[in-house]
Amino acid sequence: MKSFREYLWFETKEREELVNITQQVQKIVEQSGVQEGLCLVNAMHISASVFINDAESGLHQDFKEWLEELAPHEPTSQYLHNRGVEDNAAAHLKRQIMGREVTIAITEGELDFGPWEQIFYGEFDGQRRKRVLVKIIGE
Amino acid sequence: MKSFREYLWFETKEREELVNITQQVQKIVEQSGVQEGLCLVNAMHISASVFINDAESGLHQDFKEWLEELAPHEPTSQYLHNRGVEDNAAAHLKRQIMGREVTIAITEGELDFGPWEQIFYGEFDGQRRKRVLVKIIGE
Amino acid sequence: MKSFREYLWFETKEREELVNITQQVQKIVEQSGVQEGLCLVNAMHISASVFINDAESGLHQDFKEWLEELAPHEPTSQYLHNRGVEDNAAAHLKRQIMGREVTIAITEGELDFGPWEQIFYGEFDGQRRKRVLVKIIGE
Repeated sequence: MKSFREYLWFETKEREELVNITQQVQKIVEQSGVQEGLCLVNAMHISASVFINDAESGLHQDFKEWLEELAPHEPTSQYLHNRGVEDNAAAHLKRQIMGREVTIAITEGELDFGPWEQIFYGEFDGQRRKRVLVKIIGE
Repeated sequence: MKSFREYLWFETKEREELVNITQQVQKIVEQSGVQEGLCLVNAMHISASVFINDAESGLHQDFKEWLEELAPHEPTSQYLHNRGVEDNAAAHLKRQIMGREVTIAITEGELDFGPWEQIFYGEFDGQRRKRVLVKIIGE
Repeated sequence: MKSFREYLWFETKEREELVNITQQVQKIVEQSGVQEGLCLVNAMHISASVFINDAESGLHQDFKEWLEELAPHEPTSQYLHNRGVEDNAAAHLKRQIMGREVTIAITEGELDFGPWEQIFYGEFDGQRRKRVLVKIIGE
């Protein structure tokens, strides 16, 4: 069994951003040399997500507005988590809806994807350095 | 290490349907010959889900109504994603709540499940051919 | 390839509780002897979750209140699932938002975590014995 690990680093300009990381993950799969296996991609921070959905800018705006309705950032005082120095409670909630991680099949050395599947890093409390982990196991 | 891949195909009659796929996945696990490993089951389309919950028709109706409240299909014009020919933005949102995939332990050649766990395909934009991927690795 | 399975048992005092299980999972990883691989941790019951987020009590209260707004327990009669003897429909919905499972990378014999990642059992219909499965594969 082979295993392979790599990090992706982010420092978004905005507090919230959705970043397409599909090509970066594909390259890591190639580097791993794994032909058949599983590829785990997860946020290493608890106010960010990794998810698979559509690479369509209108939908991304829809996601942001929808998440803001379900878990509004303001007023920050509505959350106990924000009693002290923190103001990012809503980011922790949004991350649960969008998810921490995706597990992707690797078949014949490639991400085994449907026609529209793309991988995104979902940042909900950005403007600082944060990481995504890519871990591959297989043969 | 062994690996095994199979597809499940769907073409639902309704736009939204929840389909029990537990027995189909169990058969694929048997075919794989894997005794100890992991089984990934994921939607290959980005307006559908695979999830594990209860095989109870009342709860399934509750799920549909609840998702419709959280991410209403109508009016379709409320979503930027639906500016052009698309009308399925809400399906992309519902899919995030229900999830893209499940990863299931295989122990002694079987899905290692609690007493009530059943696997479902969640279709939110159906009436056309769509796929689920089952990928198994182990020994 | 090695594989290893262990259960964690819970019987919470309250109907809803969030329980930190990070150290228990770390010990199981050590027992497994796996140096490089994947660790699946999933609820075996369909009204409970396993998720990764922050070990901060204020945020945990925020989670409970937020989930109660998105999927209120009362009135139980609002859900078809509760027509008969059941009253736990809302627990099944909350579990979908928080997720059934996490898959965690194992690197050099340890959970490959970011600085704040902690694993929680999310109980939404407790006060009875329920289980979490930990399945590890790797080498």
